Amino acid sequence: MSVRIAKNSGFCFGVKRAIKIALEAAGDHDGIVTLGPIIHNPQMVSKLADEGIFSVNKSEDIDGRTTIIRSHGVKKETLQELNNDNIKIINATCPYVSKTQDHGQKLSEEGYQVIILGDKDHPEVEALKSYIQGDAVIVANADELPDLKFNKVGIICQTTRNIKDLQELVQKLVPLSREIKVINTICNATSVRQESTTALAKESDLMIVIGGKNSSNTKMLAKISENFVKTYHIETSYEIEDKWFEGIDEIGLTAGASTPDWIIVEVYNKIIECMGSIEDKIESVDDIPGFKEEK
Amino acid sequence: MSVRIAKNSGFCFGVKRAIKIALEAAGDHDGIVTLGPIIHNPQMVSKLADEGIFSVNKSEDIDGRTTIIRSHGVKKETLQELNNDNIKIINATCPYVSKTQDHGQKLSEEGYQVIILGDKDHPEVEALKSYIQGDAVIVANADELPDLKFNKVGIICQTTRNIKDLQELVQKLVPLSREIKVINTICNATSVRQESTTALAKESDLMIVIGGKNSSNTKMLAKISENFVKTYHIETSYEIEDKWFEGIDEIGLTAGASTPDWIIVEVYNKIIECMGSIEDKIESVDDIPGFKEEK
Repeated sequence: MSVRIAKNSGFCFGVKRAIKIALEAAGDHDGIVTLGPIIHNPQMVSKLADEGIFSVNKSEDIDGRTTIIRSHGVKKETLQELNNDNIKIINATCPYVSKTQDHGQKLSEEGYQVIILGDKDHPEVEALKSYIQGDAVIVANADELPDLKFNKVGIICQTTRNIKDLQELVQKLVPLSREIKVINTICNATSVRQESTTALAKESDLMIVIGGKNSSNTKMLAKISENFVKTYHIETSYEIEDKWFEGIDEIGLTAGASTPDWIIVEVYNKIIECMGSIEDKIESVDDIPGFKEEK
Repeated sequence: MSVRIAKNSGFCFGVKRAIKIALEAAGDHDGIVTLGPIIHNPQMVSKLADEGIFSVNKSEDIDGRTTIIRSHGVKKETLQELNNDNIKIINATCPYVSKTQDHGQKLSEEGYQVIILGDKDHPEVEALKSYIQGDAVIVANADELPDLKFNKVGIICQTTRNIKDLQELVQKLVPLSREIKVINTICNATSVRQESTTALAKESDLMIVIGGKNSSNTKMLAKISENFVKTYHIETSYEIEDKWFEGIDEIGLTAGASTPDWIIVEVYNKIIECMGSIEDKIESVDDIPGFKEEK
């Protein structure tokens, strides 16, 4: 029995950056909040609370405190309100998410009917939508496209979507549109995680996907992995059950872009324990066979 | 045994317009030439020669005569040369072809690497290419795409291509490109002819596609029809053989956008003759069951 990890797993650039910004701010200020969880990982959010960085869900709960804008960004109007209320803002929006907002705004200014490939209830998409002039159409996949013809249609994506869904959406729009502009805003960290998860899932008898149950990119990894092999999506090692590994030879691990290393290590060590070994426990993700962070 | 015609068949707007321009010019001027065949139908080109409108293949053969620009357009440089030589020019380029040239030029000016979906040896594509700054990539289908990644890629089509080929091309480009702009320049006359050919082919035991062997849109109709049923591509009624109709019940006819009505009528009457009937002969395409010109 062996355990390997997808070569690109865990924290991406935008998440690392947001956590760094938050921790640096914690040292500098008294009373800091994030408007919504800074990343979609409850364990990390709880750890930040230990450092005095609390997540509030509504602007009304900010109560004058310095406010960190979460990695997923925030609605244009909300940012305006915070400015109007003279709230000190620290912006930890992922630069790739900010760029997607810029693209959305520009497409709508250029007269394109904007279509967002994404989850309409996800904070990244809610924020993105606010930057678009006029009504954006939001679809989770090509099947959700409204029965319309388009003159000029502009497509952008939530940064954590799957390229296949974008391909299907664009293919369906070609005969319905006179002009299509597609900005592929799926971020590289998403793509490489999806690709390496696919590669590992194909070679494994069981996949364990680690990350927030509210994490869009982690859910997408689980969805992709399920196409190839039995897959469990867990947040922590406590969810692991011995019986999962009966008759299993090759175990694959992968972790979403908002999953901290310490959780991955805990999961690995728990699996090793389930396998009856204690000596092989590790202290760093770098010690799990297969791991290689993207450049 | 019955014979029906695809509801959109024969001359399109651009071809009708080009022939009208040529015939009007024939009355007005002495010594008129077209630079290349005005449309891709040898029989029609021969009929125009009877009216004193001759097709020459090279600028050198114009010999100072008034020159009609063919429906497929001409290279930018060639137009410039004719102007420099003070040749009187009558432009019969299809307006949809001209629009495609404008789109190609604009895409290249906007910094897009232009990809043309088309036949690199077709005069429409040769002309279109000349309006694009820098090197355009020309592919007949997605399989011909070079193994490259693109920053900004702009796609336009020869007006007579198939929407499925455009869909496949765009789908293949999505993961290879940061930004894609697709201008669907497949003209409506092409689309409706392809759709009604598909519909009729599905209901027929045999399809006869009428039009120039050098006609891109006619060849495409034959290719589409072949996916469903035995298909013959002919230029005139003289090619028809009695044995084609043995054991055949439902015969479908369709004609390319450059096929004149009189040829369609001759073909229909020849089929009726092969079927052993003489009384059912017709004088107009409107008398063939199924025909309905697009608006």
